[in-house]
Formats: sequence, structure tokens, C-alpha cells
Amino acid sequence: MTIELLAVAGIPEIEPGDDLAAAICDRYEPAGGDIVVVAQKIVSKAEDRFVSLADVTPTPSAEELAAETAKDPRLVQLILDESNAVLRSREGVLIVETHHGFVCANAGIDASNVPGDEDRVLLLPRDPDKSARELRAGIRERTGASVAVIVSDSFGRAWRTGQLDVAIGCAGIDPVIDLRGEADRDGRELAASIQAVADEIAAAADTARGKSSGEPVVVLRGRSELISLADGPGAVGLLRDRAEDLFR
Amino acid sequence: MTIELLAVAGIPEIEPGDDLAAAICDRYEPAGGDIVVVAQKIVSKAEDRFVSLADVTPTPSAEELAAETAKDPRLVQLILDESNAVLRSREGVLIVETHHGFVCANAGIDASNVPGDEDRVLLLPRDPDKSARELRAGIRERTGASVAVIVSDSFGRAWRTGQLDVAIGCAGIDPVIDLRGEADRDGRELAASIQAVADEIAAAADTARGKSSGEPVVVLRGRSELISLADGPGAVGLLRDRAEDLFR
Repeated sequence: MTIELLAVAGIPEIEPGDDLAAAICDRYEPAGGDIVVVAQKIVSKAEDRFVSLADVTPTPSAEELAAETAKDPRLVQLILDESNAVLRSREGVLIVETHHGFVCANAGIDASNVPGDEDRVLLLPRDPDKSARELRAGIRERTGASVAVIVSDSFGRAWRTGQLDVAIGCAGIDPVIDLRGEADRDGRELAASIQAVADEIAAAADTARGKSSGEPVVVLRGRSELISLADGPGAVGLLRDRAEDLFR
Repeated sequence: MTIELLAVAGIPEIEPGDDLAAAICDRYEPAGGDIVVVAQKIVSKAEDRFVSLADVTPTPSAEELAAETAKDPRLVQLILDESNAVLRSREGVLIVETHHGFVCANAGIDASNVPGDEDRVLLLPRDPDKSARELRAGIRERTGASVAVIVSDSFGRAWRTGQLDVAIGCAGIDPVIDLRGEADRDGRELAASIQAVADEIAAAADTARGKSSGEPVVVLRGRSELISLADGPGAVGLLRDRAEDLFR
């Protein structure tokens, strides 16, 4: 089996209100069976998830947590606004569970400074599975091609260093492949019984981005059997049940 | 940028003592710049990391933990023998830190039954970075091609369901790309500042395996700039410093 990963060149700067499906289809011809991986950043920009820190008034508890973590109290307030719970905090680090259920640093808020615009930060999409469904529908309308869409973001992990791209939204693909009870060619039951395939594809896409060009759209071609007619459960299907989670 | 993932077809059943480099090079012609991802299972088999449970005598503490987790006491003894510490345990689940420093279930021991050989289990390679270096050298000797080698295994994660292939050994590639301080095309500092690229490539390789064929060797082609002359730090470079680990 051969798989191709194609980084789509020339996606322009995305602004609030832009039609992402148009921006993508203008620069790449989707084929049925393609899995289109889109970086969260451009989805959030198109959905105008920008917030100006100047508009945020931190509560006393945000001020306190900001002092503990040496972060901007206004940013901490936004992180708390986007979260169900703070899991861990220490200087420079704030690990939360977002309203979506993702466990990540800083509620996934991109606070890296733009020169001349130090105040503007970018939140995660409100509902990345919905974003993926809409983008999938937009690509289908525009081209007739039945693709799957994955919205990806870079998350840290426990125990292992560095970030890895994972799926925070998806449509047209089941995010997991359940292999329990199936046998490998030795007749052994498969050890990795639930494969987090949407996360694996998000990670794969990141290997095809140029280091500095950082193309926000990468297409995985060659696994069309993973594409479903239905949009499917979305990336929320990748969240571990709280009852089974031993690391909070 | 276009990346190709090629699953190498026809790798035979690997037996203890087999020459893995030969088995791989007989079925695929390595090119300089290829990143060869090899499933832990065949590395462990070639290195004869099989153990028969019949030869294991559990200690009382292994018996106790086995009762708590409803596991075979002999398997629990092996897991403890392969581990520095037990992080979590409950019925059916035993999360440990292995002697290598990996946090995973069951010390990565593959205990899925082979029909007619219910007693035989397969341990992780003793030193997967060394395995990767040796395989890299073997491929170079045989073909002259300077490739990188990644040994991969399927690990579960905190918070997210399903398993993901990660790098447990590597040679000829730095397992992380440190982007701290570099800017993206907007002039923003890159948010994902340390990219766990060896883990991303391991995950990418898994997307190219057939569900039932489960090819143990997948080649990533098109990122030759990631290959280093030196073998490099190995996958131990992916282990988070204990002092920075908030989830034990």
C-alpha cells in the first residue's frame, strides 16, 4: 500500500469570514477519498475566534492563578473561560480540560505575539467537529468530491516531550478503528486493539509541512476506504471516558 | 512538498536470530534519505525477546497485584521485572514506567495468544535505540544507502482513547525538532515549539499498514533533510524529564 501526503501550496492568509472551502479548492483539486487535514489556526481565523486581551477583565481568581503561573491575568481569564477544569498548574504551565473535553495547555489558545498586535489571541473553534462537517460540505458542494476532513492542532502529552498534531475535529471518517477480537496474520489477537486513526493522520500530515512554510492544509491520499458517507461521530470520539481516565 | 509512505510487502515471519536488515532489503530497495519505520514486534522476535510464562515464578507482591488487576500472576511478574515503577493499576490495567523510561500499559509486553502457544509472550527490545542503530548499520552495509530507522510500538495515551504508534527507538534522525524562537509566516513565534517528529513519523507509518496485512515495515520518503550522519540521541530524547512531568 502506498500513501501520499500532499502539502497544499499557496493557501493565502485567512481572515475572519473567509470561505475556507473556496480557499482550499482554489489551490488543490479534491478527489473522492482524500482526507483533508486542516490546521486549527486557519479554521479559527475564518471563524473569527480572535479576542483582544484589552477587552478582558480578569477576576480575582484569574489574577491569583496568573501570579502562580507567571502568565498574563487576562490570558488566564480567557483560558478559564474556555475550560471545564484546571488539571495542573505551575510556573509557565496551565493544563486544562476545555469545554470540548480536550486536555491541553492553555485551552489551546494561541497567544504567540504578532508584531504590532501583541494583544490579539486566537481561541480554538467553538465546535471543531461542526467546523469539519461544514468544510466537508463546502468541498462537496464546490467540487462534488466526497472527502473526509480533519481539523488538527498541536498538543503536548504526558510523559513524552514535544508536541504532536492530533485531531480536534473530523467529518467523514471514524476517528478510531476498533480491531478488538480481530487476528493478525500469526493468528494472534491484535495487540493495539483500538487504533486512533484520526490522530495518526493528523500527525502524518504534520510530517509533510515545511518547517518554515508551515502549510496549513495537507491531503492524505490512498486510504479512501476510511471515508464514510456519514459525517460520523467526530473527534469527540477520541475523548477517553472520564471513568476510564487514570491521569487527572 | 509531497511525502510518500510505502508499506513493504512480503516481509516473512521473523524468527529469533534472523537478520532483519537482510529481510527488509530483500523486499525493498532502500534509497538515501528514506526513513524506515519498523514495528517493535519483528525487532523483538529477531532479538529473541520471547519468554515462556511456564518459566516464570511470581513473587507474593506480583500475586497480589495480579489479584487486584485480574491478570496472570506470571505476566504481572514479567511486567514488574521490566519496569522501574507502577504508575496506575486497576482491574485489567497496569500502567508502568519501563526500564527504558517509557510509560505504557503492561511494560509493552505482547501477551496476545498464539493458538497452540498460549504461554509465550514477547518483551520489548532491551535497547530499542541500539536495535535501530544496528538495523541502520545493517542496511548501510548491505546497500550503501544512508537511511534513518525508527522502531515503533502502539501505546495508549492519557485522556484520549485508542492507541497511537510512537517511536521507541531511532537512529539517524533527531526525534524532536526544536522550533523555539523561530517565526511562522505571520511573524508569530511558532506555537508548537518542539515537534515530536519521530513520534509523528511512527504514527504516519501506521496509517499505511493494511488493517489485516499489518505490514511491519513502512518507509517514509521525501523528508531526507531530517536524516543525520550521526545516529543521534535516539528515542530516549522523547522522554519527558521527570521534573517536568505533571502526570504521574
